[in-house]
Amino acid sequence: MASHFVRGVARSAATLAALKTPRLTQAGRYVGATLVMGGTALYCTQPYTVFAAQKAPTTLDTSSFMAAPVTDLKTLEENPTDMKTKMELMIMRIQSEFCRALEAEEGDGGKFTVDKWVRHNASEGGGVTCVLQDGATFEKAGVNITVMAAPLSKELQASMRARGKSLPEDKKFTFFAAGVSSVIHPRNPHIPTIHFNYRYFEMQDEDGNNKHWWFGGGTDLTPYYLVEEDVRLFHGVLKSACDRHHPTHYTRFKKWCDDYFFVKFRGERRGVGGIFFDDLEDEDPEKVFGFVKDCAEAVIPSFLPLVQKHKDDAVSEAERRWQLLRRGRYVEFNLVYDRGTKFGFATPNARIESILMSLPLHARWEYMHQPAPGTPEHKITEVLKNPKDWL
Amino acid sequence: MASHFVRGVARSAATLAALKTPRLTQAGRYVGATLVMGGTALYCTQPYTVFAAQKAPTTLDTSSFMAAPVTDLKTLEENPTDMKTKMELMIMRIQSEFCRALEAEEGDGGKFTVDKWVRHNASEGGGVTCVLQDGATFEKAGVNITVMAAPLSKELQASMRARGKSLPEDKKFTFFAAGVSSVIHPRNPHIPTIHFNYRYFEMQDEDGNNKHWWFGGGTDLTPYYLVEEDVRLFHGVLKSACDRHHPTHYTRFKKWCDDYFFVKFRGERRGVGGIFFDDLEDEDPEKVFGFVKDCAEAVIPSFLPLVQKHKDDAVSEAERRWQLLRRGRYVEFNLVYDRGTKFGFATPNARIESILMSLPLHARWEYMHQPAPGTPEHKITEVLKNPKDWL
Repeated sequence: MASHFVRGVARSAATLAALKTPRLTQAGRYVGATLVMGGTALYCTQPYTVFAAQKAPTTLDTSSFMAAPVTDLKTLEENPTDMKTKMELMIMRIQSEFCRALEAEEGDGGKFTVDKWVRHNASEGGGVTCVLQDGATFEKAGVNITVMAAPLSKELQASMRARGKSLPEDKKFTFFAAGVSSVIHPRNPHIPTIHFNYRYFEMQDEDGNNKHWWFGGGTDLTPYYLVEEDVRLFHGVLKSACDRHHPTHYTRFKKWCDDYFFVKFRGERRGVGGIFFDDLEDEDPEKVFGFVKDCAEAVIPSFLPLVQKHKDDAVSEAERRWQLLRRGRYVEFNLVYDRGTKFGFATPNARIESILMSLPLHARWEYMHQPAPGTPEHKITEVLKNPKDWL
Repeated sequence: MASHFVRGVARSAATLAALKTPRLTQAGRYVGATLVMGGTALYCTQPYTVFAAQKAPTTLDTSSFMAAPVTDLKTLEENPTDMKTKMELMIMRIQSEFCRALEAEEGDGGKFTVDKWVRHNASEGGGVTCVLQDGATFEKAGVNITVMAAPLSKELQASMRARGKSLPEDKKFTFFAAGVSSVIHPRNPHIPTIHFNYRYFEMQDEDGNNKHWWFGGGTDLTPYYLVEEDVRLFHGVLKSACDRHHPTHYTRFKKWCDDYFFVKFRGERRGVGGIFFDDLEDEDPEKVFGFVKDCAEAVIPSFLPLVQKHKDDAVSEAERRWQLLRRGRYVEFNLVYDRGTKFGFATPNARIESILMSLPLHARWEYMHQPAPGTPEHKITEVLKNPKDWL
């Protein structure tokens, strides 16, 4: 069923300035083996995915990525300082680092499958969806990047106006969006589920005027059982990333996260929060990019320690059942409220399997399930109803 | 945790005219044992449910209902010809008949739990939610009735206007809604899931003017495996009910059903359809009521034969897995599209557990699962993509 794509990308020391930024983050430690063998990589794709092999040689070293970038290498090479290029290369790197870090926790050698896909109209972009399913440590792990350039539908134009973007009614708009999005559902109920998403938007009218751009994103944690020191570690890493850029970023984006991941009809948050922001602009786009990059690089050090700490914890049947019930709640948030999912539903020819890779492998709904006061299950629900300051 | 409610309703031969209608439908056969013992019944309620015991004696025989009606008996008795009374008594009866019919298929004596609940503001009504969970034949079965009279929120007023109801902007409106709603998820994947919902709405402004009323409803089937003769039986019973009222009802409401239960982002229907209608009016409300009553009474004869035929069918692990994947799709429709669920989300202080009782006990999402052509799993997906005429 699957076709194969041979990417002829020669390794080269002459990388772009954008890639030269010294990077010795904690995340860097996790970059492990790649699919690359002698400069040639195989990527399993879906039958309906059609794209051309890109020509070697190139000066751009993408050998550690999960797949070739969505944008052709020539365009990326010719526009190294364009924010679109910088964002695409950053999210490709983040995807790869995170996937390799997770694979290193799979005792049985579980690997991500890599689907490189293009949109129905290939000139509108595509993405790379990496999923590890039914692994020893991760029940379902999805890490997706999308790079899109397409006309802005009327529906999305209206939604952008509702969000305060000034888009003249008589103009047609195109938009560019590049983002990395991930949801990891570990098997052990003592490891939380994590979600993160970092994205960059540009839009302009057909004459190249009325340009808007902004960044958005966030990282949030959904524990099944509350271990306060785990939550403090997680929030602490995010706060450090924020503090390097602005003294009020963490406080502001922590509250935004608590407000955003709220299931109104349940009166509870999805988890213990993290950070969330949208429509982030600045006179200097580089400043915002630097912040977003730092946040994305904080994902591994905020989460991997929790995986390593709990992946071999003993699990009772009752704990597994509780995990599945909470995963049902996760589904409720994602399908009813999540803005990214709704954006996907509203995007014509969206790749629905990449959008819904966030849903857990299993979920459960029991009528009127209420944990008894005093139990660990009850303790976490109290925190979901009344968010705390963790630091 | 649970409190108890003793309903002192004496049995009486002097029933209301509305209850005297001769009823010898096939459904009638299934009315079995009730919880009533010597004229006194116990109903398990939630701790937050507060309602007063109603005074005996009464001329209204509600002894076979799952619980006392939501509206006090005196009001019902004093307004026997009011459509609100007739609808409430009809849906209470349908609920009870359906629950008893399902219980009769539970070999292990599985019974529905009965929750009678009132809204936050008790004068606004409430409902009776019956759920049978983790039974031998039914994995999750919910049958709910709701009777509400409340101010119409601005959000719902806007949605009513969008649906073409003329509601002057300067008036405040109240609405009355009474409906029965049910989703049955059987354990055996060879038995389809069934859903039905029949409802009556009235709304008027604070001066009693600008009155609107209408009926809505439908019954639809979601098989996991396609057995054409089962689908024909199901559609045949619905068509008979329709044909007794109007020669084009079935054709029209069958198409409406196919259009309504459409998951746009999947490009497939939820199941093999049935009938669906909304905003149904007539010069004579009795005519519409008669039709809705006939539809509601067609549920048991359209579904019970399928339960009886398949409940002991052999089941492979692959079939169970497929069933869970399709239940994931069911969750997608209900949370993203279903109008009743959205109405519930938009209703302040709605009882969320009654709304979401429709969700299955278990669901599963696998990334990129696609059944191989030629398999029974593939066969049903073809029908979901291209609805058929079954009769």
